Amino acid sequence: MPSITTPTGYPVVGMIGGGQLARMSHQAAIALGVGFRVLAASPADSAAQVVADTVVGAHDDRDAVLAFAQGCDVVTFDHEHVPTAILQELLERGVAVRPGPHALQYAQDKVAMRRVLDEIGAPVPQWEVVGSPAQAVAFADRVGWPFVLKTSRGGYDGKGVWVARDRVAVVDIMSRELRPGAQWLAEQFIAFDQELSAQVARSPHGQAVSYPVVRTVQTNGICTEVIAPAPGLSAGDSAAAQELALRIAGALDVVGMLAVEMFHTSDGIVVNELAMRPHNSGHWSIDAATTSQFENHLRAVLDLPLGSPLPLAPHSVMVNVLGGDHPDLYASYKHVMARNPSLRVHMYGKEVRRGRKQGHVTVLGDDLAHLLAEAHHAADYITGVIDE
Amino acid sequence: MPSITTPTGYPVVGMIGGGQLARMSHQAAIALGVGFRVLAASPADSAAQVVADTVVGAHDDRDAVLAFAQGCDVVTFDHEHVPTAILQELLERGVAVRPGPHALQYAQDKVAMRRVLDEIGAPVPQWEVVGSPAQAVAFADRVGWPFVLKTSRGGYDGKGVWVARDRVAVVDIMSRELRPGAQWLAEQFIAFDQELSAQVARSPHGQAVSYPVVRTVQTNGICTEVIAPAPGLSAGDSAAAQELALRIAGALDVVGMLAVEMFHTSDGIVVNELAMRPHNSGHWSIDAATTSQFENHLRAVLDLPLGSPLPLAPHSVMVNVLGGDHPDLYASYKHVMARNPSLRVHMYGKEVRRGRKQGHVTVLGDDLAHLLAEAHHAADYITGVIDE
Repeated sequence: MPSITTPTGYPVVGMIGGGQLARMSHQAAIALGVGFRVLAASPADSAAQVVADTVVGAHDDRDAVLAFAQGCDVVTFDHEHVPTAILQELLERGVAVRPGPHALQYAQDKVAMRRVLDEIGAPVPQWEVVGSPAQAVAFADRVGWPFVLKTSRGGYDGKGVWVARDRVAVVDIMSRELRPGAQWLAEQFIAFDQELSAQVARSPHGQAVSYPVVRTVQTNGICTEVIAPAPGLSAGDSAAAQELALRIAGALDVVGMLAVEMFHTSDGIVVNELAMRPHNSGHWSIDAATTSQFENHLRAVLDLPLGSPLPLAPHSVMVNVLGGDHPDLYASYKHVMARNPSLRVHMYGKEVRRGRKQGHVTVLGDDLAHLLAEAHHAADYITGVIDE
Repeated sequence: MPSITTPTGYPVVGMIGGGQLARMSHQAAIALGVGFRVLAASPADSAAQVVADTVVGAHDDRDAVLAFAQGCDVVTFDHEHVPTAILQELLERGVAVRPGPHALQYAQDKVAMRRVLDEIGAPVPQWEVVGSPAQAVAFADRVGWPFVLKTSRGGYDGKGVWVARDRVAVVDIMSRELRPGAQWLAEQFIAFDQELSAQVARSPHGQAVSYPVVRTVQTNGICTEVIAPAPGLSAGDSAAAQELALRIAGALDVVGMLAVEMFHTSDGIVVNELAMRPHNSGHWSIDAATTSQFENHLRAVLDLPLGSPLPLAPHSVMVNVLGGDHPDLYASYKHVMARNPSLRVHMYGKEVRRGRKQGHVTVLGDDLAHLLAEAHHAADYITGVIDE
């Protein structure tokens, strides 16, 4: 392997985790000319396939992370799973860790997140840490059935989240063993009319930019569709969602991208989850915003001035490509690209597994109904759900 | 070095040459999910710094090129300098070489190019192969002074091209030793009102798309500014330039991107040069076209349907960042990014050398005069020509 050099003056960003977020961050780093190093669990990881400066090692291996950080000007993340003790040790050794563990803890632990959001007065569902099925049932009897049970740590893409409709379900869900340090979190079930995501980028200087608030559609807990901006959202609700995301980013001292996933209800907005990294709800920005979320994440962690988040078209639609029965997704390119020459295709280099995020497609333009039809057609055709 | 894998069904594109065109092609390959392998002269090459699947070797080393091509589904180029004999041997071994040597010869040898353009009836300056200063002077006495002297092979970025104003200059210019296989080419000097570039992508199927015709500005023979589309160009001249580029691509059986550099005169258009690869005149397309020239080059050599070349804004301006006195270009980012949050910055990972292409900036929007001012300010500030 040729050793990787970066020209005079350019910093090196180290990203822990080799998934598709690191892969797409690499595209942004190439343009900025900054060094980009990835700590990947395997050489087959999505980012490891494309990033020249890849180090193979585990994100929870202290020695691997410390060695990786040497020579990085700043360390940031493709996911939130690096243990806090390792991050603290990086800080003690003088490594710039962005976002820092004092912020990242709220994306790692949903109980800590609920607590801090209460403290800063952000609207959240009613919630309670529950130590037993009986306590969970008492919570639900008070706030209403059905209700939501979550593990406080380690969940993603719908994993670690259940809707409990009765006592039997509660006992069944809570019979699962929690990972060390995790707790059961009970939450009020929110009857939303749409799910939103408000993304902001924030730098150590405290500069921040706010992307248009988007609608997200989840299927089995996995984000499958994003519309930017969210259709039918009033200017007032949109501004409220952006202000709330900016307030959370400032209060928690987030550096980098922050996604605030929200429920929109007839009474306003309620915060669901936080992610302190580029997020699936911002993939549309690669093709349809002036500055992508990946570039703004890099700019933020490097304390560069942030780029314009303004959209390039009135509407854009991003649809995820999930794994289905076809092992060969490339074979579908001829059809979907010939059908729509404006289709933007992003694939992540992953072998196909049912329900796994394999990639996404984006279209942008004036006619939202048409864009939705085109994006879903392409994603379904690539997956193999439809064959014409 | 982790060995690079590509998921089931995805092809591997091999690009010979590790310059900025390969670097930016990698960004497009990442999105398409296809494998991308680069043959770079050095690990410090622009593309070698960022492409995981980099092989270090010389483009004119037969064994290195043959070894590189093994496992590539198609071989293409960052530059036109691979010897034809090596390309022929690749073909004999069953490697898909795109563009093929039968087309590439016209971008490698300017005499061959002039000859074939005459054959297909494309408008070109009057030209003649000249074996001596006396013959060159006789040519100029016939077609007019000043005139242009070029080496038929090996020139780029203004190297290998001179304007001769008198007999003394002719003798001086032609006293240079030609590289093996090169000839002296004398050409009529064209008094143009603007220089244009018409880019098309063409696939083995014969599908082709045509980008908007752009204005290019050269300074000391190096492209420094591109405006897309070319301002003040009539619809008729624009269509004629596009048709000519499509006709040349078809007649020469070009596969991939073709740039036809032209002079616009009061009498119409005249072809200056051909480039069969992504080209500096198309860098605007990364940020300001639906499909970039890099993605369409990959789609073409993979025989995928081509993407829409339509622009995302009424005007876009690309200005090259050339090396100046500042060795540290990154230090300028804070200023130029803060001044214009919509500025798109692309740097190539090269140590600064005076006059060398270090990167480029792009802006897009409605107000061309403003865009020109912004792009030049940013490029001049990064270079160090101005300091505020």
